[in-house]
Amino acid sequence: MHLTSERRLDDDVLERGFTLGDVPGLLWTSASASAEAPLVLLGHPGGLDRMYPRIAARARDTVAAGFAAATLELPGSGDRPRIPAVEEARAELRRAVTAGEPVGDDVVDRLVLPLVDRAVPEWRAALDALLPLPGIGGPVGFAGGVTAVGVRLAAVEPRIAAALLFAGSYVPRASFDEARRVTVPLLVLLQWDDEGNDRQMALDLFDALGSAEKTLHANTGGHTGIPHFEGDAGNRFFARHLR
Amino acid sequence: MHLTSERRLDDDVLERGFTLGDVPGLLWTSASASAEAPLVLLGHPGGLDRMYPRIAARARDTVAAGFAAATLELPGSGDRPRIPAVEEARAELRRAVTAGEPVGDDVVDRLVLPLVDRAVPEWRAALDALLPLPGIGGPVGFAGGVTAVGVRLAAVEPRIAAALLFAGSYVPRASFDEARRVTVPLLVLLQWDDEGNDRQMALDLFDALGSAEKTLHANTGGHTGIPHFEGDAGNRFFARHLR
Repeated sequence: MHLTSERRLDDDVLERGFTLGDVPGLLWTSASASAEAPLVLLGHPGGLDRMYPRIAARARDTVAAGFAAATLELPGSGDRPRIPAVEEARAELRRAVTAGEPVGDDVVDRLVLPLVDRAVPEWRAALDALLPLPGIGGPVGFAGGVTAVGVRLAAVEPRIAAALLFAGSYVPRASFDEARRVTVPLLVLLQWDDEGNDRQMALDLFDALGSAEKTLHANTGGHTGIPHFEGDAGNRFFARHLR
Repeated sequence: MHLTSERRLDDDVLERGFTLGDVPGLLWTSASASAEAPLVLLGHPGGLDRMYPRIAARARDTVAAGFAAATLELPGSGDRPRIPAVEEARAELRRAVTAGEPVGDDVVDRLVLPLVDRAVPEWRAALDALLPLPGIGGPVGFAGGVTAVGVRLAAVEPRIAAALLFAGSYVPRASFDEARRVTVPLLVLLQWDDEGNDRQMALDLFDALGSAEKTLHANTGGHTGIPHFEGDAGNRFFARHLR
């Protein structure tokens, strides 16, 4: 891991840019805390530059709640090289959505599964690199981002002790089988009126998740309308399970 | 309203028994707070004596969070005179459940609607009697109990500013129409694995509720397995809307 930047944000948060191989990432920690803080990995839909304001706001809330936070650029997004098969599937999906046609399962598989296959080992490698850093320690949480990435990571990575998943659309069929193997405590967020989302599929995914302790928070509103109080709820969820 | 008892619980909570006409009730307030506290009405399925340990625990958490709390005995429950038509419907429902047969809509209507028709005016009269008391003031919340009572009360009583509903079964068809007329902020709790509950009906009821701000919290576990952290979530919900 190579540090590429370091700056102090105005609220006692230290933001460090890094690369892990050719994957860019960001790490946020308290500039003043002396004790080790559990790490929460912040997922996102790809495109760190474009997503920066929203993800940095989540990171600052996360650090203010007593955690460290980190994220990685997704494969094929931002400045990373495009993945031709994924770009092709994305174009097919856009054509279908624009035409008001249903999106086929095979398109979803070709769009999402290559991302999951690449991203999950990268997030696991990030844990190898980040957990030995001073000030970071203990169990790890994963919050948000591409649903199928969160499901796979929660299913296969034993250092993930709790996960907050956004119930998004375009979840590959294979993710439902993986969901049954997840056992860590879960908080799943669902925007009830998200027009781009298949509500029943989201409820089916919640039902499929194997964890004995899982909670669904469904709120009125569209895709980007998650109420601010859910940020606090997420931090309380991680406080229960990572401390 | 006549006070029938008064005692100090061991945690700075004053518990007063009262009757309102022939309806017994309980009121819990802080024994030491000087400011006026918003009132949260605590619903329950009927039988105050039997329910006392659970409802008193909820009341003490509610008072500790800065509210006053009150409850009434339901019509036909506890020491109140039985309602023959309701008892008959209850017996029919038990026969159907024991036999593993579906419970007909008409049985639900005959069991629940007479309770709603009687209970809602009683809860409204309780507000008339309780709100002028010293130490109680501001908007009112309603939490839990018979779903159809909460829906009707939230729909017709303008002093109710926020409601926490338990998504129970045996909701009359008429309650779905009343649900569309509810406009106050709502928190709806659903036990995902409640065998006596119709999960799809609970989700349909959540969908039908007319409020612009509504949140569903679904948790793994059976009917009585609501996690303790939902008590805190309920108090935070009321703090957002009653303060």
